Formats: sequence, C-alpha cells, structure tokens
Amino acid sequence: MSGTRAMDYGSLETRFSGFLSERAATRTLQQFWDMKPQRPGTIELAAGMPNAGLFPVSGLDVKVSLEPFGEESARGSVSLRGDELPLARSLQYSETNGLPQLRKFVRQFLLRTGNQPGYVDGECWDVTLANGSNDSMFKFFETFCDSSSTLLCEEFTFTPAVSIARATGAQVVPVKLCLESDRAAQGLDTDHLEHLLRTWQTGPYKNLPRPKILYTVATGQNPTGVTISVTKRRKIYELAQEFDFLILEDDPYGYLSFTPFAASDPMHNSYYDDDMTVDKYVGKVLTPSFLTLDTDGRVIRLETFSKVFAPGMRLSFIVANKFIIDKIVWFAECTSRAPSGVSQALFHATVEAMAHKSHPELDLLSGSVESWIEWIMAVAKNYQHRRNVALKALYSTAAYREGLYTVIEPSAGMFVNIKINWLKFKTVNSKFTSAMIPELIDMLDDILMGNLVKVILGYKMAVSLEDSLDRCGFVRMAISYVANDEELSEACSRVGKGVMQFYNDFSKLVDSCQQSTPL
Amino acid sequence: MSGTRAMDYGSLETRFSGFLSERAATRTLQQFWDMKPQRPGTIELAAGMPNAGLFPVSGLDVKVSLEPFGEESARGSVSLRGDELPLARSLQYSETNGLPQLRKFVRQFLLRTGNQPGYVDGECWDVTLANGSNDSMFKFFETFCDSSSTLLCEEFTFTPAVSIARATGAQVVPVKLCLESDRAAQGLDTDHLEHLLRTWQTGPYKNLPRPKILYTVATGQNPTGVTISVTKRRKIYELAQEFDFLILEDDPYGYLSFTPFAASDPMHNSYYDDDMTVDKYVGKVLTPSFLTLDTDGRVIRLETFSKVFAPGMRLSFIVANKFIIDKIVWFAECTSRAPSGVSQALFHATVEAMAHKSHPELDLLSGSVESWIEWIMAVAKNYQHRRNVALKALYSTAAYREGLYTVIEPSAGMFVNIKINWLKFKTVNSKFTSAMIPELIDMLDDILMGNLVKVILGYKMAVSLEDSLDRCGFVRMAISYVANDEELSEACSRVGKGVMQFYNDFSKLVDSCQQSTPL
Repeated sequence: MSGTRAMDYGSLETRFSGFLSERAATRTLQQFWDMKPQRPGTIELAAGMPNAGLFPVSGLDVKVSLEPFGEESARGSVSLRGDELPLARSLQYSETNGLPQLRKFVRQFLLRTGNQPGYVDGECWDVTLANGSNDSMFKFFETFCDSSSTLLCEEFTFTPAVSIARATGAQVVPVKLCLESDRAAQGLDTDHLEHLLRTWQTGPYKNLPRPKILYTVATGQNPTGVTISVTKRRKIYELAQEFDFLILEDDPYGYLSFTPFAASDPMHNSYYDDDMTVDKYVGKVLTPSFLTLDTDGRVIRLETFSKVFAPGMRLSFIVANKFIIDKIVWFAECTSRAPSGVSQALFHATVEAMAHKSHPELDLLSGSVESWIEWIMAVAKNYQHRRNVALKALYSTAAYREGLYTVIEPSAGMFVNIKINWLKFKTVNSKFTSAMIPELIDMLDDILMGNLVKVILGYKMAVSLEDSLDRCGFVRMAISYVANDEELSEACSRVGKGVMQFYNDFSKLVDSCQQSTPL
Repeated sequence: MSGTRAMDYGSLETRFSGFLSERAATRTLQQFWDMKPQRPGTIELAAGMPNAGLFPVSGLDVKVSLEPFGEESARGSVSLRGDELPLARSLQYSETNGLPQLRKFVRQFLLRTGNQPGYVDGECWDVTLANGSNDSMFKFFETFCDSSSTLLCEEFTFTPAVSIARATGAQVVPVKLCLESDRAAQGLDTDHLEHLLRTWQTGPYKNLPRPKILYTVATGQNPTGVTISVTKRRKIYELAQEFDFLILEDDPYGYLSFTPFAASDPMHNSYYDDDMTVDKYVGKVLTPSFLTLDTDGRVIRLETFSKVFAPGMRLSFIVANKFIIDKIVWFAECTSRAPSGVSQALFHATVEAMAHKSHPELDLLSGSVESWIEWIMAVAKNYQHRRNVALKALYSTAAYREGLYTVIEPSAGMFVNIKINWLKFKTVNSKFTSAMIPELIDMLDDILMGNLVKVILGYKMAVSLEDSLDRCGFVRMAISYVANDEELSEACSRVGKGVMQFYNDFSKLVDSCQQSTPL
C-alpha cells in the first residue's frame, strides 16, 4: 500500500484492467485509417477533412468580462490562421481527449491549485476533456460498471449520476451523510462506511458483490453543501485501499469554497480581505482533492467548467491514472468523439485575454492559469456573499427563532439547505412518523409555491428513500440564479414564512397524510 | 402499407416500441426537479443554474466568410442580453434536443430542401440536435440495437458506425454495392438485398434474427462516392415495409451533390451556370432523402454540420418520427445532455449575418435558411470543381490509358475512388487470386506513400472482408483537404505513377504474397 510501487503504464494496466466493464473490455473500433509516419511533402488524400477555406467563419472576437456583473471588458480574439490556437484548428476534426493547448492548461491549472495526484510522476496521470460532467460520468460508468458492479454513494446525491450507473446494470448502495454545520463532522459518515465494508458479508447487501467504486461529491456536496474534511478523506482512502475500490470524486463546486459563516458578523467575506491571494486561496480555502492523497492511482476526479465558466460550454475534464484515462478516451473515440472545438476556442481565447490584461508579466500559459484562478476567486467571492445574504435572512425569520428549522451551513457551492426540526413539529401532533416526511414535504412545497418560491425537496435526491427517511426532511435552495441580494433575502423570508405556515397547519396536515406506516 | 394510417403519438409508440433496445426500454432517470407550473413572481431557488452575470464572456463577434476561400466577410454578433438568441441563453443549461431557435431553423431548412418526411403532418415528426453524426449514430444504436438485433449495411462503409452498432451486441450483415459510374446502377445492390431478405431462413445468416435496421450512406457514399437512385430507393423502401425494418439514412455528404462529369468538357461546373438557383439545386441536383418516401415513420435521417460548416462545431441533427426522436432525446437526457451552446450560438450568429447581408428582403428565418443553402451551394461548387480537377487528372495518367484502373465517378461528396483493374494485372502473373488483394493493396499503399501521397485502402472499410474480396481492390482519395488545384492534380498524377509502378512490379509482388488461398 505504499506510494513507491511501480506506476508505469504496464503495471497500471495489470492493476486496473479487472475494474473494466464487460462492454469496455470488448469495445473495438474498426479504424480504416492508419498512423504510419509520412515523409515530408506527402499530399493528404486520406483524411476526410474539409479544407479550412470552406469554413464559413474566419474569426471570433470575444468580449471578456473583467469581473462578475461588471461593465468593463477586455477583448480576446481568434482568427482562422492565428498563432497559439488558430480557429481553423478548433473548427477542424481534433483530438478526442481535447486540444493539446487546453490539456496543457488543465495540467498546469491542477498543479497550481495543488490538485495533482499523490503519485506525482506526471507521466502516470493524464487528463481528458469531455462534454460536461454528466457526460464525464456517463463515460466513466459505461467504462467501469456493469451488472456485476456495486457502487457506493452518499445517501442524498445528484441522482442522475445514480441513474447513469444503474443503466449499466450496476447496483447502488447509499452511505449515510452527517448533515451538520460542523466542518469536522459533516459529509459522508465514515463510521457507517467502515461498518458497511467490514460487515458486508453479513449485512443487508450481502447478496451484492463488494463495492468497486465510491461515487462522492466530496466538496460542497449536492444537495447538502457539506464538505468531507481532510481527516475523513484520509480515512476513506485507507478503506479504499483495504477494500480495493475506486474513488470517483465529482467536484463541480469545490472552487466555490467558503470560509466559515460568523453569525456575529454575517456579511464578512474573506474574499474581500486584502491578503486574499491565489496562494492563500489554494492553501487555506480549498479542500485538497482526494487525488492529493492518492498513491495507487485509484482516484478519478471530475471537474467541469459549467459552474465557473458557463454550462452551455459543455466542457469538463477528468483526471486519473493514464490507463483509466486511456479507456475513457477510447470510449469517446468510439462514441461522441471530441468536445466542441468552438467551446474550446472560446475558453482559450478568454483566458488568454485575461492573461494579457491581468498578467502581462508572466508567460502566456502561467498568466492564463493565474488569471483564471483569479476569475474563479471572483466568482467564489460572489457566491460567499450570496451565502452570507441567505444565511443572514434565514437566521432572521420567525420560523428560525421558533426553532422550526436549522440551516446546514454550506462549506462550498451553490446550495443552502434547511432541515425541518421534526422534534418540535411532533409536539403538535403525535401521530407524526418519519414515514410521513416525503408526503409532508410535498405539502410544504405546495405552501412554498403558494408563497412564490421554488425549491428542491431533499427526499427526491435520496438514493434509497426507505434508508434515508429519518434524514430526508430538508429542502435545497440554489443561491446562484437569483438576480440580487434583495431577491435572495426575499426568497429566504418567503421560505421562513412558508415553514411557519406549515407548522401552523401541521396538525391537520398530519391527519390528512395517506402514509402512516413506514414505507 | 398506405400513407393514410394514423400517425399520432400513441400509434407511433405502439408501432415502434418493439424496436427499442433492452437498455433503452428500461433506462430511467431519477429526476429530483419537477415541472409544476409556477405562478408569476415566483423566485427560482430550485434550478442549480449560475446567474448570467457570472459568465466570463459577455459577447461574441463572428467574422463570417462571404464565399469559400474569400477575403470579404460580414460580421455577426451575439451579446449577453441580445434579442433573438442572447448569449446568456446559449451559455446557460439548455434544451437537450437543441435550442428552439436552431430546431426551428432545421425544420425550415428541411422544408426548403424538400427533405421532409412523406407523412407530411409536422406534428408527427421531429428533430433533435446532437454532437456530430458519430454521436447521433451512437445515440441511435444504443437506443435501437442490442444482442438480439441484426443490422444491414453497405459492404463497404464508414466502419466506425459498424463498430458502434456491434458494441451493443448487434450483428452486422453486409449488402453488396454496385461500384459503377452509371448513376442508375450504382450504390446498394437492391437485387442482393431482396435475395437476402427473401431467402433469410435458408441463407447464410439463417441463425441470426431477421434484420431490424438498414444503415445506409445513400448519397455520396463513404467510401465509394456512389448514390442510390430514386428508383432504387423506392424498391428499398418497399422491402423495408414488407420485411418491417427501419432505414437509418446517414447523409453527411448529400448537399455536396455533383452533376455528371463530362470527359468532353471536364472542367464544366454547373454550379457556375447563371440559371443555378436554390430552386434548381433543390429540385434537380439533390437526390431526395429516403424521408420523402416515408409513409410509415420508419426512416431516420442523420445530417451533420461537419462537412458544410465545420467538424469542430460537433453539431449534427436527427430527423425521424416523434416517438423515435423522443427516445433518442431521452438517451441524451440521461447521458451527454445538450450539444455545446457555444457551437449553437456560433451557427445562429453566422446564418443571421448571412441573412442580413444576402437576404434583407426576407424575414430573418427564411433569409437565414436561404442564405445557408446558398453557402452550401458555394461549398458544393468548390467540391464539384475539385471533382473535375481530380477526374481530369486521373483520366490523364499513363496508368489509366493502359487500362490499369477505372474511376468510380462520385455523384456527391468528398471522395473519388479508383478500382484496380485486376483482369489486366492477372495477365502478368496468373498466380494472382482475389485472396491476395488486401496484401497487394498494402503493397500499393507502400508505393504510394513512397510517391508522397496518402490514400485510404478500400478493403479496410469492408464490413466482412471475406464477403467482399472480389470488390475490395480500390482506394479512396479525399479531394477536400488539399490546398488547391495544382496539389490535387499532382496528387492524382502521383497515384497514377504509383499504380504504374505497382503494375510493373506486380509479378514479383504476387510471388511474394503470403496469402494465396481464400481468407
């Protein structure tokens, strides 16, 4: 289990081939082209590529924002026969794993943010671009899951990921979550995980194969906003080694990390502090990826540009050991092929424009990475501000003061969750049972919609509602989309009023429940 | 079998559900969001969407070419909060089947080019965008093929399509191709198809289920450049009705259709004729899609922007009956989600700029469609010119005059193929057999590469080499990528010289062959 064992391609292949799905192990591609070396002066009649002169666009100018919601902008541009990444190159058929310029950027970005694998030899790990994290997950699950696979994941999660895994035939087993604001305790329940693994043969899942993969949204979890501490990550990684499973770390929100909320100074935003720098952000604000603990090559990290650039880019990337990346790229080679070259060109032009404006003193690649992290910090600052506005408002409602809900203070991301305090509610009508929670939460939703605010219901994000009944009574609020502070405060105030109304009506709502026995 | 039977959604579902793959029939998605109607004034805390103010780009300017290889350009632009298709909309999460503006464009484009389904009721058919035709095929095959499926296709074809189908567990059966320049005869051999179908139970594939799908590149076939005539299309459609299979028409090249080549006037290019108009192009140059013959909803048409706009767009679309489209969109919903919004925005901005420049007298949608067809015609004109240059050069070589090869004159597309005239070669060394063809063609390839020209070998695009040995002795030349006429002529001349050298060395090449008995 030491970090010094051989990590060359051959040993990676030997170690990880057994993890492949049946389909991935047998997927072939009848290539009619070859890669024989050509002598200089060879005329290309083989590749079915259009000539760039037949592309209807010859240039793209990008108006790049200098700050979120800002008026000022810089200009980036890319012309058909430009230098670093000509438009003709982006518009042509290109590398399935992404344009080399972007992969180089991503590697440098990972090094600068400290999110490189623990097996530091850069030859052993690789990155590939994909069409957004949903697509990354799909490619990963098709490559590594089939009907002989068991997947572990947080009991509440981004359920489409679970559906994608299940479509391969895999079985999905939920692991409990600690839904606390306490940063040391919150997130995946490592005691439950360990218990599951140690008692697998006699436990509730004894008829399933031992788990092959843990899927986790480790930082700023969706829906709950919680983050797994480094100490708990170490524990999880040790269990992964002992029970030999892969860790699929889905991290769309990690760069939107928050310093702790202080009720005494609710609007304090450390991103405004003078001494907040890229180094401090990387070293003190971000929670290190599971990758950084990885000595065996068993961690697969999914990142996306959807939350920090824009979802419509359909651009994401995957980091893992070279063998795993090769297999995922092979899947793409046989299916979707490369991500949009136009999205890639736009990203490249944007970070270059940022570099020219903000870091002319650095070489272009370093300047692009530095400027991009600064942009991400500006986005995170905005989210931390929104988090502050939301928490302040949620802690100011009469419902909160009455103890009708608690807030799960998010450590990162786009979501704030409130948990209904059923102990308090139960005093109103003792017929209440956990089995009623989904139905009651639907009633709360009707009240909230009547109050003109739309949220997500936690129970709908349960992997197994039966297993999570006691903990599913929460609602998720996205703080990302509302127009401004006033709207966000108003929304939180409506939620508070809705919960109060829910409480006032609770006795008759419980009486009207269809469901009174456990599901 | 009449075109008047009910085509409402329910009857489509009843008729086509049985065609679904096992995975498609059971694919589910645990959606945690709902589509309940919201009252005006509702604040959105549900959707995990970033606010547009957090997108780092606020505008895109596109330099739009006015003609292929031209210097002049028009400008198109799209700003964050623009009118018809704001950038903020393209950069946000968007419809899995493509932005409504683009789907509307595609429908209008299909109507204008006459490629709408024979069941003309627009409510019964639909379109969805996808990430390039490879992705379209993947989505189609995953949805309709599994290990119980048999697929028919042309004996030489775009082999990745076959690999994608096989990865689902499907079996693929080749149908003979007529590799003639004669436009009435060329393309899929309908007699062979009919024979296969009528004698299935006693024929070589009697152990396979009856075919469920015919995959065809019907116009400007890849690799051969041949086109199936309308008469033959009717025959194929009747067989599809009789034997109840779907027709998957993959048409990347159809808009690049050529009028016949005249050896007496080799550089004649009808696209330069004064009376070449959009109407004439649509009515006389294009070969109508299988869709136009479709009265049952059994045709699925794949188009792509890769050849007429640019491959790096990763944008394609699928046209079929509404039930089939729904199922393909459902697959995308659970996997890749929407195509790049940036690619979609670029396409939209480009055709709008074209419309403003070329058709200010029309409404914007009609002007965009008209201008786009005119652009496609300009691209086709360039390809027809390249076809002329290539054929003229290929007919001028000593090897051709000696009868060492014939040219399969393409009716459309990016490829010109030459067939080695083995009858002539056989006279040199009577030990020659068809079984040697792949090995000999490899030797020809070495000679050609020595002569500084790179082609694709026909035999590598055979679905079943064993079945196609007699017909696999051809090479495919892409006329699309070379820089100019001189380079294309020179390449053809090198091919001619290579064939001559191949002929001169033929006797000893045959003697050196490893393979002398049929494969």
